[in-house]
Amino acid sequence: MEYRAKMIAVLLLSAAVANGTESTTQPAGVGAISPSAAVQDEKTGMLWYDAKLLTIEGKGWAETEEFYDRLPPHAQGKVPEHVWNLSKRSAGLAVRFITNSPRIRARWKVGSNLAMPHMPATGVSGLDLYVRWRGKWRWAGMGKPTSENNEAMLVDSAADGRHEYLLYLPLYNKTLSLQIGIPSGYVLTNPGPRAAKPICVYGTSIVQGGCASRPGLAHVAILGRKLDMPTINLGFSGSGKMEPEMAKLLAELDVSAYVLDCLPNMTVEMVRERFEPFVQTLRQARPETPIVLVEHVPHGGEAFLPGRRTNVERMNRTLRLIHRDLQAKGVTGLSYVPYDQLLGTDGEGTVDGVHPNDIGFLRFADAMEPTLRQVVGAGG
Amino acid sequence: MEYRAKMIAVLLLSAAVANGTESTTQPAGVGAISPSAAVQDEKTGMLWYDAKLLTIEGKGWAETEEFYDRLPPHAQGKVPEHVWNLSKRSAGLAVRFITNSPRIRARWKVGSNLAMPHMPATGVSGLDLYVRWRGKWRWAGMGKPTSENNEAMLVDSAADGRHEYLLYLPLYNKTLSLQIGIPSGYVLTNPGPRAAKPICVYGTSIVQGGCASRPGLAHVAILGRKLDMPTINLGFSGSGKMEPEMAKLLAELDVSAYVLDCLPNMTVEMVRERFEPFVQTLRQARPETPIVLVEHVPHGGEAFLPGRRTNVERMNRTLRLIHRDLQAKGVTGLSYVPYDQLLGTDGEGTVDGVHPNDIGFLRFADAMEPTLRQVVGAGG
Repeated sequence: MEYRAKMIAVLLLSAAVANGTESTTQPAGVGAISPSAAVQDEKTGMLWYDAKLLTIEGKGWAETEEFYDRLPPHAQGKVPEHVWNLSKRSAGLAVRFITNSPRIRARWKVGSNLAMPHMPATGVSGLDLYVRWRGKWRWAGMGKPTSENNEAMLVDSAADGRHEYLLYLPLYNKTLSLQIGIPSGYVLTNPGPRAAKPICVYGTSIVQGGCASRPGLAHVAILGRKLDMPTINLGFSGSGKMEPEMAKLLAELDVSAYVLDCLPNMTVEMVRERFEPFVQTLRQARPETPIVLVEHVPHGGEAFLPGRRTNVERMNRTLRLIHRDLQAKGVTGLSYVPYDQLLGTDGEGTVDGVHPNDIGFLRFADAMEPTLRQVVGAGG
Repeated sequence: MEYRAKMIAVLLLSAAVANGTESTTQPAGVGAISPSAAVQDEKTGMLWYDAKLLTIEGKGWAETEEFYDRLPPHAQGKVPEHVWNLSKRSAGLAVRFITNSPRIRARWKVGSNLAMPHMPATGVSGLDLYVRWRGKWRWAGMGKPTSENNEAMLVDSAADGRHEYLLYLPLYNKTLSLQIGIPSGYVLTNPGPRAAKPICVYGTSIVQGGCASRPGLAHVAILGRKLDMPTINLGFSGSGKMEPEMAKLLAELDVSAYVLDCLPNMTVEMVRERFEPFVQTLRQARPETPIVLVEHVPHGGEAFLPGRRTNVERMNRTLRLIHRDLQAKGVTGLSYVPYDQLLGTDGEGTVDGVHPNDIGFLRFADAMEPTLRQVVGAGG
């Protein structure tokens, strides 16, 4: 519903642009943003635009308590408190914009915990910029956080011309505010939402992006670039536990696919109890939306640590049986991603055995890509 | 000279072990270490052994001001102060040992700066454990630093049997002390140095391992495991500038190959002035030791940022000319690694454009491997 409402708004705005009736100062407007909407820095002449004027991707719900939240206000009190708190970390949110400026700066404000021992501040609290370049999304620059208030040059010498950018927000911190700065004389444009419906990935710390070195290297972000589609990251560190309330929330989203990747936060007993009803809730609300089940990722030391391997195998046997049961009950539109290729086979894909490092995330996205490409019908 | 002296000591000790004349309490002794050399924790019964009792790899010089330093005392005052200070960070140092214990703990003390904004504490100040398993070095566990004094379980359930381990020390912090803890009743053995002479890599922050998520993912460490050889990491962040004094220091080392990878810290003018004399110093001191020249790594955003690309190309044109000149002058034993494959081609191999992330380091090692394998004569 959410998505359709947004698309209707966009289509109306697009029509307004085409008819020349759109006010370019309209805050949520599609098209070139009037410099009068910016705040000019007296010393540098730089024009600072609030990122809210641009297209925000990765928000499943437009109305949220704070702008860069990931769950809607009505989730509060229904989902576990830890999930609610983590929904205020901006994992998977991204700002899409177009500009012809050779220089792009950003100012952003985050919460106080800039980094984790096994994840750098760049991933926890940083900005990460990609550009559409020769048909692909390419890395273009980043904002390195050194305090709660940050300013950084993301790009200082872009290739000539007008380019489309995707700026990923912090994975494990709150984004309290964000402005984009470009020199006066250049145009900042809000491209409006993309036509494709987003892919929604629900899961654990791994889905949230722990421990990517920068936000664009979370596997959900990589998949979004590979498929050239928006994604919604509903990863909740330590808290992807498939409560019935989460199923109802996910069912509110009109998405191109659901990906369920919660096993590392669950016990075998929880999987047996919660997985099937969760899928049934989604299927009843969304009869046609593909649902992708992801096995428990291997442990980084599994070749050498028999205990770790046994636990993962036990979880995945449980999921295979549930998948078979669901199919036997006639639930359609299910896909299944086995664990064995998710991190590669050399043991180098994690930082601590559990959380992928950048190697692991790239492999995770590679392993997921064929299944997702098939279910969303994205071209090769 | 250093290396030969060490090898003679090892051979004498090995002979002593074979003859049954070795005192097992000998601090630097090869073989099983007597539990009497350990400190027992009264509460847990755990035996704590100082890592100095084991085989330390990656030290070019046995005698150093502090035990985990990377340059000898006579370097002080000759090398730039920044190099001297950085030589006290334990990049590339590793402790090799054998044990049959299923559990391995570590206590380690580091300096105060646990992390950098673009590199997590696990890489800057952490421990990283690999095991020789079915013919390959495999990741086994890590120690996550949370303060200057740390204790961690590296492995809690090893596969049965006696295994050889390699424990990498912090890349960007000092290692002030290190103890290995195993339960009483198990044997900790000092294997003694390996037969192969180490590979010495001299360079910048990239060589030092910035910004690997853990010490074992610096490309010098990866190469050491791939070739199954010890390595000496002489990477100095921001300070790999090929001073004549550094050439003299490197020339003291009897190694299987020198790798020179300093361009990102130099200007074209510095490369023109310093590179050739540096190589000549090494070649005169070590007529037979292979010398590998490495081009300037590409910038992570080079596809889109023409200015970054131009700078790298200019540096590499300079190095190609120097390489040709050296060959024309009859300098033999030079190999050359071009830049184009060092980080892959998708732009994902860095955290900030300049410093490899784990993806970049794995690719860097892959790109270096064939040349190094060839020059050191290591089997496939």
